[in-house]
Amino acid sequence: MKGSFNELMSLDAAKVRDHIRTCAYRSHTAGLGQGKLQANLAILPEAFALDFMRFCLRNPKPCPLVGVSDTGDPKVSTLGRDIDIRTDVPAYNVYENGVLVDSRFDIVDLWDDEFVAFALGCSFTFERALMATGITLWHIDNNKTVPMYRSNINTVAAGPFKGPMVVSMRAIDRDRLPQVSRICKQFPMAHGSPLHWGDPGEIGIDDIGLPDWGDASSIGEGQVPVFWACGVTPQVAIERALLPICITHKPGHMLITDIDDDAEIPVVRSMDLQIQSQDED
Amino acid sequence: MKGSFNELMSLDAAKVRDHIRTCAYRSHTAGLGQGKLQANLAILPEAFALDFMRFCLRNPKPCPLVGVSDTGDPKVSTLGRDIDIRTDVPAYNVYENGVLVDSRFDIVDLWDDEFVAFALGCSFTFERALMATGITLWHIDNNKTVPMYRSNINTVAAGPFKGPMVVSMRAIDRDRLPQVSRICKQFPMAHGSPLHWGDPGEIGIDDIGLPDWGDASSIGEGQVPVFWACGVTPQVAIERALLPICITHKPGHMLITDIDDDAEIPVVRSMDLQIQSQDED
Repeated sequence: MKGSFNELMSLDAAKVRDHIRTCAYRSHTAGLGQGKLQANLAILPEAFALDFMRFCLRNPKPCPLVGVSDTGDPKVSTLGRDIDIRTDVPAYNVYENGVLVDSRFDIVDLWDDEFVAFALGCSFTFERALMATGITLWHIDNNKTVPMYRSNINTVAAGPFKGPMVVSMRAIDRDRLPQVSRICKQFPMAHGSPLHWGDPGEIGIDDIGLPDWGDASSIGEGQVPVFWACGVTPQVAIERALLPICITHKPGHMLITDIDDDAEIPVVRSMDLQIQSQDED
Repeated sequence: MKGSFNELMSLDAAKVRDHIRTCAYRSHTAGLGQGKLQANLAILPEAFALDFMRFCLRNPKPCPLVGVSDTGDPKVSTLGRDIDIRTDVPAYNVYENGVLVDSRFDIVDLWDDEFVAFALGCSFTFERALMATGITLWHIDNNKTVPMYRSNINTVAAGPFKGPMVVSMRAIDRDRLPQVSRICKQFPMAHGSPLHWGDPGEIGIDDIGLPDWGDASSIGEGQVPVFWACGVTPQVAIERALLPICITHKPGHMLITDIDDDAEIPVVRSMDLQIQSQDED
């Protein structure tokens, strides 16, 4: 089984996961999965799970929670019948006490009965929708990573989880701002509408040319910097919480689900599969 | 301080809560709060909170979670700065081991350091939006309770929480079905688009004239029965889970929040209040 990016482009989500599971493919997932929802991953000990869910619920724009496992169960069957969270992400980062200690292609031998896995929607969803309407995104056309910044917007804390909202920036033609906002609002599972546009200083960004993560991006004539809540926010909150252990996806190396990008709810084929005899219940 | 329904109609959400807090008003909240999100309430011991949040996340249409308290803290400040969940709902039901044992106007002396309070969106939100476009709802025009039915759609289980999806039914003119679906989809915090319309038998309802809760509703010439996921679903799941204690609102007697009915996220004035100096962090 080969696994070049171009070969994988033609495969559906489940088949791409097959390649990832066997480590035939270990790279980034942007553009893969044919329009299925991709997700950030965070795996934490159960002792922190309730507070982390609270944190996500209180900060739904940076932390759009789309799936959660049972404690100790590596399946997240609401996102895809066969998903095994230990093998189905191309690459993982392992943190101990907030420090990155390892990067791996699977976490089978690290899995613990106390782990809870969380999946959070990501920006690939709205970027795809924007590009479908002809809006160009500089970082994609130039094969760069979107620039991300620590803002002065604080998240709403929950237990040990708190900290600054991290935002991503994309330069948008001024006359398309209303359209961009309208499109993105349709994707609450993928950060929703932008948080801010215009003066970066208003949200605490002193130098737009010096992102805290990712690559500096060009802002063209007639364009405005537009800022979205970013999935790095929960990662920063988790690192600051100094959990004894925590596992995340490696940036850009997402979980590809079986949920349609534009689904109303993040539950795979929920209705037709669940209509059953009431006697079974 | 008086508290007749008509007097309260002219007050904003915070002022209505004032009347409720002092027990000057103890009745149902439909139509009150001037377009603010109203919510179902469930208070559970912390030991069950993680599984209940999982249940809500896996069943977002019947259980649109909009707020959660810290353990032992009766405030749900993301829904309104001054909300005290022990006093700000007009009437409460108290369950022990799945059995209704008490109804009260406040729960101050029942509050426990182990309690977690959950707020879930309710149908008032989309009903208000439908009526604003001229769609009539029989149960409202006739001062009845919407009919609710146990369906044969199963929820996705989480820990002890499972059971049938409860659905509410409203008769809609056939030619307005697409409009109704489109409007309701805009309110994921209030059950979203309908689950089903047409033949009640397809979702396990044998006799539309015999609802399991609420009042039978007339279905006029040219109308179709339309079914929405219903907030009684989590109540049934909680009752079946036989928790040692659980407190809910009394049906129709909701928590009135400070969140706009049509807000993108259920977090009160989130952005402007949170922009602070980064040094504070």
